[in-house]
Amino acid sequence: MLEDRIRNKELLSRVMSAEEAAMLIKDGMNIGTSGFTPSGYPKAVPLALAKRVRETGERIRIGLFTGASVGDELDGELSRTGIIAKRLPYQTNESIRDYTNNGGCEFLDMHLSHVPQYAKYGFLGKIDIAIIEAVAITEEGHIIPSTSIGCSPTFVQMAEKVIVEINTSQPLDLEGMADIYIPDNPPNRKPIPIERVDQRIGKPYITCGVDKIAAIVVTDIIDNVRPLAPIDDISERISGHLIDFLEHEVKKGRLPQNLLPLQSGVGSVANAVLAGLLKSKFENLVCYTEVIQDSMLDLLDSGKALFASGTSITPSQEGLVRFKENIKKYKEKIILRPQEISNNPEVIRRLGVIAMNTAIEADIYGNINSTNIFGSRMMNGIGGSGDFTRNAYISIFTTPSTAKNGDISSIVPMVSHHDHTEHDVMVIITEQGVADLRGLSPKERAKVIIENCAHPDFKPMLKDYFKRAQSGKYKHIPHILSEALSWHHRFLKTGTMKIW
Amino acid sequence: MLEDRIRNKELLSRVMSAEEAAMLIKDGMNIGTSGFTPSGYPKAVPLALAKRVRETGERIRIGLFTGASVGDELDGELSRTGIIAKRLPYQTNESIRDYTNNGGCEFLDMHLSHVPQYAKYGFLGKIDIAIIEAVAITEEGHIIPSTSIGCSPTFVQMAEKVIVEINTSQPLDLEGMADIYIPDNPPNRKPIPIERVDQRIGKPYITCGVDKIAAIVVTDIIDNVRPLAPIDDISERISGHLIDFLEHEVKKGRLPQNLLPLQSGVGSVANAVLAGLLKSKFENLVCYTEVIQDSMLDLLDSGKALFASGTSITPSQEGLVRFKENIKKYKEKIILRPQEISNNPEVIRRLGVIAMNTAIEADIYGNINSTNIFGSRMMNGIGGSGDFTRNAYISIFTTPSTAKNGDISSIVPMVSHHDHTEHDVMVIITEQGVADLRGLSPKERAKVIIENCAHPDFKPMLKDYFKRAQSGKYKHIPHILSEALSWHHRFLKTGTMKIW
Repeated sequence: MLEDRIRNKELLSRVMSAEEAAMLIKDGMNIGTSGFTPSGYPKAVPLALAKRVRETGERIRIGLFTGASVGDELDGELSRTGIIAKRLPYQTNESIRDYTNNGGCEFLDMHLSHVPQYAKYGFLGKIDIAIIEAVAITEEGHIIPSTSIGCSPTFVQMAEKVIVEINTSQPLDLEGMADIYIPDNPPNRKPIPIERVDQRIGKPYITCGVDKIAAIVVTDIIDNVRPLAPIDDISERISGHLIDFLEHEVKKGRLPQNLLPLQSGVGSVANAVLAGLLKSKFENLVCYTEVIQDSMLDLLDSGKALFASGTSITPSQEGLVRFKENIKKYKEKIILRPQEISNNPEVIRRLGVIAMNTAIEADIYGNINSTNIFGSRMMNGIGGSGDFTRNAYISIFTTPSTAKNGDISSIVPMVSHHDHTEHDVMVIITEQGVADLRGLSPKERAKVIIENCAHPDFKPMLKDYFKRAQSGKYKHIPHILSEALSWHHRFLKTGTMKIW
Repeated sequence: MLEDRIRNKELLSRVMSAEEAAMLIKDGMNIGTSGFTPSGYPKAVPLALAKRVRETGERIRIGLFTGASVGDELDGELSRTGIIAKRLPYQTNESIRDYTNNGGCEFLDMHLSHVPQYAKYGFLGKIDIAIIEAVAITEEGHIIPSTSIGCSPTFVQMAEKVIVEINTSQPLDLEGMADIYIPDNPPNRKPIPIERVDQRIGKPYITCGVDKIAAIVVTDIIDNVRPLAPIDDISERISGHLIDFLEHEVKKGRLPQNLLPLQSGVGSVANAVLAGLLKSKFENLVCYTEVIQDSMLDLLDSGKALFASGTSITPSQEGLVRFKENIKKYKEKIILRPQEISNNPEVIRRLGVIAMNTAIEADIYGNINSTNIFGSRMMNGIGGSGDFTRNAYISIFTTPSTAKNGDISSIVPMVSHHDHTEHDVMVIITEQGVADLRGLSPKERAKVIIENCAHPDFKPMLKDYFKRAQSGKYKHIPHILSEALSWHHRFLKTGTMKIW
């Protein structure tokens, strides 16, 4: 029954085809959409827009602002048709990644907690249209979001017009999972009143109003979720080291028995870590994170975790089935918040979150590259890793010690792009071991990172660099600037970082 | 009357000479002291310790933890006598800077807001003794701090024993200026209830207790403050650009008429900026910053600024006289807070602070080096610049476009050390002009930074680098890794970054 989904009679007359709704989008506009990880993003309207541009050759170039990554119907189609001129703040789609690296669009890689407030402050320009996937619209014209919150509340607030995609593949039972709280702008901002991960502080809908809704499109296209990353041997070893580290911290009295709220990035290693927690002796865990994936559902199902707060639910195809079947149960254990809250430094520092994120590479002094391979090639973006790392109780980065069949060392003299600096990184873990950097100076860090984390193939080269660098004039962070990035340069020239 | 300063009779018996108190300090200890900028740090005890080591040749190596920089009696004397083995989190003293760069001690360069909480979490090891400069001790054995708060409350809390230096050169009227609030550790931490800069949320003393005080030393050594940095032509032009920028933001409706709370670093440019505000048409300003210097007293005296919150007062010799003479008036307009509060991301983001800090160098993509000249040579440390920049409403970095008589360009292809990444920096200002980076991609930033901020002598070289880098395979952040740090390398070899 469409009336269950669109509860205001006047709005029923604004239901139209995706093609008609897409006609609202004009060249030069900034479009803000729902979506965080390939979850809860609009699909029908972008598909229609891309189809039109393909068929008519019309020139449309837009700014596309989202919560984080979105699916192929949006990032993929709009980049393959050259529609995206500017993109922020994060992406994981192969087409837009290539498009960005080939210079097809200007990509702005932002801390996810910054996006909503910069939009509200007027720093990102005008937002012309917001396109929001929803499970329903209330009688007052407010929007019940689907499986991600991201920046949707802010984009709706700032946009001139709103297009709602009612997605009937998303269960109406999602209603009540969202908790929408938007801080006022300074100087009128108040403390965000979250002291526990399971606290509700806002409303179950995105405030919008009947007048602002310019079009409603009804669709049933299912989220183009990514398959579950398999857990390989390396990931399992990293997970083992991480669990050992946490157990050691509990033993030392620096963490409570049930730890502190967990944040976890996504991917194979993150999956392995959460799977490791499932087998661990830890109990009564809680999560304050961005994305809730299969492995977190496992923790909730098993009773190991009591509660998870995030900004999106992105299970695999199989996980999605499980989620939908048990949604009433999950609604008691999951809150979805705007990314301004899920990623807020205030809340993260107060709760004392344990941040676990993945690195592309780390250097011997503890700097982390999370985004750009060889300094120039955008992978995904910094995402929420900076929001969590800087404010965490303990910040942990994981990475396999090598890449490309062993030709790339993930531990290098100097990272080729800096996302997290030596001031922010507490622990680095590879399958080789754990480098606990807390309280260590740069030179002390170098010793423990090389010794505990580097792959044996590269350890002698790293030791050699570090030793020669220390014979230089300035010994605080010893570097040989003419060599610091030579490992990357060598790989680009020869296909390996190795020198023999 | 000593009884005005030491109000507990039992404690009068613990008054001893600095030499006797210094005997409590043993090899291998970690010592936490008061002091933030050369203000309110202990002087008599470190002088006595250094004298003893000089005279007896006794081996004493300690970890020295402070709020931020301290004066020569502490950092200078203890580094010249080789007593400091480890130092954190910041310094500005020439002797310890050389000592650090020569490898004399391990220096840990930390975000200032992190220091107290990492100490409380047990991440920095045991703190054996806290040495705190005070104007008085209450009957309950609580400490009335002098002109800086810094980490003193936390060091007192965590230390096994406390040595108090009662400094009679510090006016007793300082009592009431401090507002001491220490957040609980997670998971019991509450929101910090500051919504306006002039709000008091804590106590006027540092909680200690009679039993913990092991020694009291009475001294009258005056803070070894730094002379006022003169305002040169370059600084004045930077200040002019900054004021113009703020006026433009008000005009565009992105800032209120009276701006938002100001944070300002220290030094010549910062002085010029605050002097510029004094001459500007802005009114009813407030400051939420770290250090209150002469130029901020000027703003308060003129009525341009209504209130200033900081963690220390560090005027010049002349300013110190003015401050002491008018202390009752200033007490109504100044609050001194622990650095965990003055630099707290929660409060900074909530209040919407305008952060103004200085850079050593910036690169064409907007990364900032605040700490290490040529990547290895420690200058002062990151201080609070990261706490403020990441969480500011608007984050601004200033630097003259050249250094060393024009042989060094402050705008380079890639900074030689990263303290603030491309994700955090909104505005860069040199005497050449303003680069407003908000909403810009890396390549868009490069154009505006080169065009508006680089010195004409280096502009063609920067354009050439940027152009050639863009012909590479990956165009997100175009770099030529074999050249990215070559400007620094060239200076080290030839004494200039110029190629002709």
